[in-house]
Parts: sequence; C-alpha cells; structure tokens
Amino acid sequence: MTKFEDNNVFIYNTLKAKKEEFHPVNSPNVGLYVCGPTVYSNVHLGNCRTFLTFDMVYRYLSHLGYKVRYVRNITDAGHLENDADEGEDKIAKKARIEQLEPMEIVQRYTVDFHNVMKKFNACVPSIEPTATGHILEQIEMIQTILDKGLAYEVNGSVYFDVKKYAETNDYGELSGRKIEELREGSRELDGQSEKRDAIDFALWKKASENHIMRWSSPWSVGFPGWHLECSVMSSKYLGSQFDIHGGGMDLKFPHHECEIAQGQASHGVKPVNYWMHGNMLTLNGKRMSKSTGNTLLPHELFSGENELLDKAYSPMVVRFFMMQAHYRSTLDFSSEALSASEKGFQKLMTALKTLGQLKYKKTEVDPTLNQEIEALCAQCYQFMGDDFNTPRTIATLFDLVGKINAFEKEGEISKIAEETNDLLNSTFSGMVVDVLGLNVEETGNEGLLDETLQMLVNIRQEAKQHKNFALSDKIRDELSAAGVQLKDSRDGTTEYIIN
Amino acid sequence: MTKFEDNNVFIYNTLKAKKEEFHPVNSPNVGLYVCGPTVYSNVHLGNCRTFLTFDMVYRYLSHLGYKVRYVRNITDAGHLENDADEGEDKIAKKARIEQLEPMEIVQRYTVDFHNVMKKFNACVPSIEPTATGHILEQIEMIQTILDKGLAYEVNGSVYFDVKKYAETNDYGELSGRKIEELREGSRELDGQSEKRDAIDFALWKKASENHIMRWSSPWSVGFPGWHLECSVMSSKYLGSQFDIHGGGMDLKFPHHECEIAQGQASHGVKPVNYWMHGNMLTLNGKRMSKSTGNTLLPHELFSGENELLDKAYSPMVVRFFMMQAHYRSTLDFSSEALSASEKGFQKLMTALKTLGQLKYKKTEVDPTLNQEIEALCAQCYQFMGDDFNTPRTIATLFDLVGKINAFEKEGEISKIAEETNDLLNSTFSGMVVDVLGLNVEETGNEGLLDETLQMLVNIRQEAKQHKNFALSDKIRDELSAAGVQLKDSRDGTTEYIIN
Repeated sequence: MTKFEDNNVFIYNTLKAKKEEFHPVNSPNVGLYVCGPTVYSNVHLGNCRTFLTFDMVYRYLSHLGYKVRYVRNITDAGHLENDADEGEDKIAKKARIEQLEPMEIVQRYTVDFHNVMKKFNACVPSIEPTATGHILEQIEMIQTILDKGLAYEVNGSVYFDVKKYAETNDYGELSGRKIEELREGSRELDGQSEKRDAIDFALWKKASENHIMRWSSPWSVGFPGWHLECSVMSSKYLGSQFDIHGGGMDLKFPHHECEIAQGQASHGVKPVNYWMHGNMLTLNGKRMSKSTGNTLLPHELFSGENELLDKAYSPMVVRFFMMQAHYRSTLDFSSEALSASEKGFQKLMTALKTLGQLKYKKTEVDPTLNQEIEALCAQCYQFMGDDFNTPRTIATLFDLVGKINAFEKEGEISKIAEETNDLLNSTFSGMVVDVLGLNVEETGNEGLLDETLQMLVNIRQEAKQHKNFALSDKIRDELSAAGVQLKDSRDGTTEYIIN
Repeated sequence: MTKFEDNNVFIYNTLKAKKEEFHPVNSPNVGLYVCGPTVYSNVHLGNCRTFLTFDMVYRYLSHLGYKVRYVRNITDAGHLENDADEGEDKIAKKARIEQLEPMEIVQRYTVDFHNVMKKFNACVPSIEPTATGHILEQIEMIQTILDKGLAYEVNGSVYFDVKKYAETNDYGELSGRKIEELREGSRELDGQSEKRDAIDFALWKKASENHIMRWSSPWSVGFPGWHLECSVMSSKYLGSQFDIHGGGMDLKFPHHECEIAQGQASHGVKPVNYWMHGNMLTLNGKRMSKSTGNTLLPHELFSGENELLDKAYSPMVVRFFMMQAHYRSTLDFSSEALSASEKGFQKLMTALKTLGQLKYKKTEVDPTLNQEIEALCAQCYQFMGDDFNTPRTIATLFDLVGKINAFEKEGEISKIAEETNDLLNSTFSGMVVDVLGLNVEETGNEGLLDETLQMLVNIRQEAKQHKNFALSDKIRDELSAAGVQLKDSRDGTTEYIIN
C-alpha cells in the first residue's frame, strides 16, 4: 500500500499557475478540503462536476496509499447573496417564501444532495462539517483577526481590513487581481457605506430585524460572513496549513482569496499548499442559466425529463462522461456527447466483466505483447499523476480493452507472464472501479425481468396450442419453484405474480 | 385534508400516567421532538424500534392532516458515559482508540444510521439538528439558568441546582422518583466532589487536558452536559412549549426529567405537553447485551449473518413485526416470531396488490357486507387514535384482507356502494403504505431474473435438440431485442450477457 512512493503526482497549483510535484505536509497523511454545496436549492450539475472531480482526486490519492482526510462542508448559513443586499442570506430568503424554518430547507436539500452524490457513486467525505455547527469557532477566529489589527467593527458588523493586510501580504495572489482594479470595479455595485474601503469583506454581519438565522456574538446578534466558514472548518479539521484545497473556479475570487487572507491573518501561515480549481460545465455550448431555460438538474438527467435531452442517461454514464474531460477544461453537455459516452462506458464495463471471467493460462511469453501491456498499465499511473489526466487515462484503458477483447477471442489469457496478468487485472479494475469510481449499473433489470417472464408466458401459451404439455407444464412448475405464480384467466390470457 | 377533525387521537402521556385527548398548542401545526441516536457506534436495534415508533406517530398525525414539524436530533457530542468517569464523553473515547478525529466517527455512524433508517422506510425528519451545531445556544441557556439562580459554577463547570429548583417545582414528576431516594441511590456511584448535591447534574463540564471535543465558554474550555442539547434544540425549533416529546423509556430518567427542569428553569413553562415513551426490545427473551453476545445489529438481521437467526429478514418484515406490537409493550425478537411476521406481511402486501388490480362494478348493494366494510375502515382509525394501537389496527386490516380475497375470487369488487369502495381503497392503502410505512420489497428479483433467463436458455437448448429452430431462433431474437446476448460455446453450453 505504498504505491505513492513509485508514482509521483503533479498537481496544477492555481496559486503558482503551474504544475508542481505533490509533497504532503505530513505523509502518508493528506488533508483535502473541498467547498461543498449551499443547501438552499437542488444541487446544480456544474457543482456535481466539481464534487466528482475531487471525489476522483480523493480516490486516486487513496488508491496510491495516502491516508486522506477528506473534508467537504455544507454551507447552511451565512451565504450572503451579494454585498449589495445588505445582509439577507440566501437560505433565510427562501425560508420566508416557503414559510419554512431555514433549517427545514437545509434538511431538505442536504438530503437531496446526499442522494444525488450516492447515485453518482461518490465517496462519503471523512467529515462533512456545517457552517452553523461552527459559529463559535467563527466568532473566535474573528476575535483573533481583530486582535491582530486586521479587522474593524462598525455598528455591530466586523470587516476584514484588506488594505492593512495588503501592506505585508499579497492580496490577489491566487486570483491575480490587483487591489486598485478591484476597488474601481466594486465601488458602484457596493452599497455598504459602513466599510472603510469597498474591497473589505464581512467577517460578521449584524442581523436586520427580519433576518431569521442569527446568533449572539461580542459585536451583535448576527451571522458570520460566508468566506469565514471554510477557513474555520479547514483549519479545525486539517490544521492551519494543509495540503489540497479544491473548488469550482468561480470560487477563486473572492471566496478563496479571502480564505487565504483570513488564514494568513489568524495563523500567520499560508493555509493551503496546493489550490485546485475545476472548470465549468456548459449545456449545448452555452452557460447554464435558469432564466434562459438552458439548465438541467441531475434528476432530470437520470429520468430524461427535460426537453434538452433525447433520453435518460444513467448516473454512471454521466460520471464517465465527466471523467472523459480533464477537470481544468470546460465540458459541454449535449445529448450527442452523452450518447457517445454511453457506448464507451458499456464497452469499458463489458471488458471489465470479461477480464474477471477469463482464466490465465501459463504459456510461452510473447515479449512484445507482454511489454505492451506492461507499458499501458504504467501509462495509466503516469497520466493520473499528470494533474489527474483522466481523459488520457481512459484512452489508455481503451487500449487495454483491445488487448482484453483479443484474449477473449482466444478464450483465455495467455502469452504473457503471470505478473503481467496480475498487473493487468489490478490496474484495469483499480482504475475503472476504484479511481474513476465506475460500477456496473443495476438499471433496467426490472423491465428486463418483465420481458423475460412475458416470453416464458408466451412460449407456454404456444406450447399448449401445439399440445406440447410437457413444455407448458415444465414452464409453470419451474416458475412456481422460482416463486412466480401463473394465473390463467377465462379469456385465455395468463398473468404472472411474483411472490 | 382535515381528517383530524373527525378522528380524535388519545395519547398515553407519561407525565400524567394516563391517556389524554390530543390537542395541539397551535393546530393544525404539531411539534414533535424525538431524542435521536448517539453516533459513536452502529445504531442499536432497540433504538431502531423507538425511531420506527415515532416515525409511525409522525406518519399517522400527518395522515390525519396535521402539519407536523418533526425534529430528531443527532447526539454528536457531550454525551457523558456516566457521571463517574469525570468528563470523558463516549465519542471522544472511541476517537482515541481508533486514532480518528471525533467528527470522523460522527460522520461514519451518522451515515450508517441514515442508511439503516432508509432501509426501514423511515421518513426523513423535518429537521435533524446536531448537538455540536448548537453549542452557542447551549451556552446561552446555561447563562439564563445561572441568571435565574438555578445553577452554580464550580471550577469552570456549571451544575443545575436540583434542590433549589425543587423548592418551587416538582422534580421527579415524569419518572415518579423522589429526591430523597435519588440522593441515597446516587451517592456511592458518584465520584464528583464538586457538586453541592449528588443529585445535581452538569450543564457544562470543564474539559480535562486530553478531552478532544471542547469549546470556549464564559466558564471554561469544555463541553455541554448531555441533557442540555435536547432542551436547546427542541425549544429553538418548536418553541418553549410544544406538543409531543418522544424517546425510549430508558431516557425517562434522568434525561427527560432533566429536560423538564431545564425548560421550566429557562422559560418558566413546562416544555412538553405530551411525553411518549417506547418500550424495550428483547432478544430471545433476554435483554440485548454486547458482553453476553445476546445482540443483533440491523445489518446482521438483513443479511442473516448472526447465529441467533435462522435466515435473513428484510427491513420491511422487521418493520411489520415491530408494528405488530404496541409501542408501550416489550417486544421479543426471535426467528420464530419473525418467520410468522414474514407470512403475515406477504399476505398483507398481496392483498394490497390485489386491491389495486381489482375493478369496481356497480351492482346491487349487499347492506350487511357494505356495513361490515365501513365499520372495519372506521375501526382502523379508532385503533390508531387509541394511543397508536398498531397491533389492533393490523388485526382489523387482516379482516379487510379477508374481504379483499373474497372479492378476488369473484374477479371484481361488487355488492358494495361506490363510496364504500373508495373508503376501502383509501383506508387500506392509507394504513398499510402511509401510516404503517410498509412497501413492496425490491428484493430477490436479481436472482429471479437469472432463473428466468436460464429457463429460456434451457428451453432454447431443448428446442434445438428437437430441431424446433423456429422456437430457438425466436428466443434468441427476442432476448437480443431485450438487450440480452446469448453466446454458444464449443462445449454446447450457452451463456447470456445482459447489456
């Protein structure tokens, strides 16, 4: 289980804008933090892509033998819609519309999110902390930043003093933004007069009269700023400096930039060594948007109930489709692209099944074939180690599918060394099942069962017409033994009842 | 949707030791709080019974048209093992043994708990708050109780002053215990010298050096006493006085007794109008106990992998088995009892299916039959309204099964009025599916599919031997159309591959 010693991993670090070799702070332990969903509506397909990307990262690092503590939070409070709406957070807004307690909404969409992730065969994170579960720790971090002179209180709210911070730190190092430009850009949008500077961001907001989610603090009854929760929860569970922080690229600024500032301000160190950002998902070439109708929910994808789709696509096909693109590339969803992926997915899973069934036979080794298979297996690890290049890994797996299918024609695996056969098996199933997280689907068999039962009923019917009672009785008896009762009605039709 | 107006509900209120007619504080809204699991190990079957009891209560009240806000907490911190161990809580203890972060343990067993509840077809509560998610609110309630002079601080810990409280309140009103007896009984066990009185209980405990789960408070870095979380979360989400509080009878004292004292002390009102307590589950006539091996986990029950079982029992059979006992009676688990329930469950579900398939035919009404069915339907509601008497309700449903089976023999529903047919349908499926939470299981069909496919393969084989190529080709072609490929091998056997 120390594969990671032989297989280097290079990660594109957004902070450095280049690929760097991965060295954990405290190997073999790895700390991985991923910004989770805001649970005030059904999870977005673009978010699903991000979560599946880091699920794959978690799976690959675990596959290499690292002990990964994987933290993905649930944002259930404190997410300001934007600075301009002066403090009404998204969850509280929806609560008033639906006449629900905010935590009822949180519960509904957390359950939905977990169900969708389960369908996608995503691993459960090691810890899934909630923002509301860490209010006290957030208040403590705010106090620390205040004590260090890098935040200030106005009317019960507390803001991070970006200018002061930038005197000794590089604010904008992650997103590449310059303070001056940010100030220019933000002034018009920003209606909050109490900030010293338009680029400052809230650590604590005093709640207005009708703001439902609120907690006591030394400054006011209010709620924490959105950026704070991830700084608090990542440092609590992974330490003040940890290995990998992931999220969608839309979170680079301001969210992650603010996280760096908060971590540096409170602990005096850069919080994260490797920043990873997943790219966007488009739909038929355009940005997904509820207002234009160019949008798709996971359950619509699985049921096919969306006019943008020609049919339903199973969670595993969608997962495979996503893995066929590199996480740093944009990916466009369309029925055509999904159909192509469906065929590829089936080919891959058929080869997996075949490989499991074929027996190895020790024969004279064909050195060329043996070396080819060894090289393809090594390539899978090289590509995964090259910033988790799943599309090239999958292409290599299809080269291996060719070899597997050739073995199948011969009815056995032969002409390669026993170790090469072991390597082929462990690499192929390791990559497909463990790393890419694909499994054989359990779909459609209900329908197939009905079809096969109906076939048996029809065959029996015909047998009776041809007075082949041996066959018709046999079918009835065997079905009965299998727990299926046949009921002949007076009009000549037969029903089956599954016990 | 105002069935509750015509159907009274009487609840056995532990506080009054008698059945009382149910009147919600703010009808049609109902507040229901249930003490949830402590997530430091796999959920116990006895706990499952309690949760399924209150799932049924939630279902029945919802069925009657009440708008139930159903809160079931997750105890993820602050559960003192006993007063004698001076402050090490169960979760932190397990964490050190397994070298895990406590919240990793919490995550693992919360996920397990949710999976088990899902298998049992339990409804998701409206809100599922965690103890760690309400530390701030717990600190606030402690401060309120201190301010009212009903608690005191010693060495950074805060204790509830039971004697002072009992001067003006009835401590022991729920459990029927007398303070003097409690004091006598507790003195020896209790090693905590800092309490003023042995019967006092902790609201806040100062953390020892090696206590992992800890939070800042005005008194010390420590953790809340276990009883406090339920007072805080129930009042936060349901109000300081709400309708129903449920739990296992082992929680009556001290947990629920302390909840009453805390609620009364901080809000000046009795927190709960109806206290409901579920009875215990025994196994083969004896108390379940890990140390004697007389224990059974839900997953062992579903898989049959426990030597106390003769075979596996499905979650629906187990749920039905539990519903066959009244929640205030003890229930004994044994293979024999489960086998009997399995047959009853199947009979009930077959009748449900039959009822769905039978067509109603308007004929002359048989007044006796018509009246019998009306009376049986009314009885279901009467029994459910009599302190949720599920066993008598189920017995009545079996009387209805008899009527349904009689209709089946005639091939249609007739001789009753159309409204009676509607009543029969809505009552039967309402009680079975909505209230008792039973559904048709999806088990075994994978195996059945294999059996039917193998039958088709065998029939085709024989057909070929008899040169009945029309049949053999037909089977191949129809299976192919259904997505199943047949592969004939040289040794004469045939394999099928499901695409």
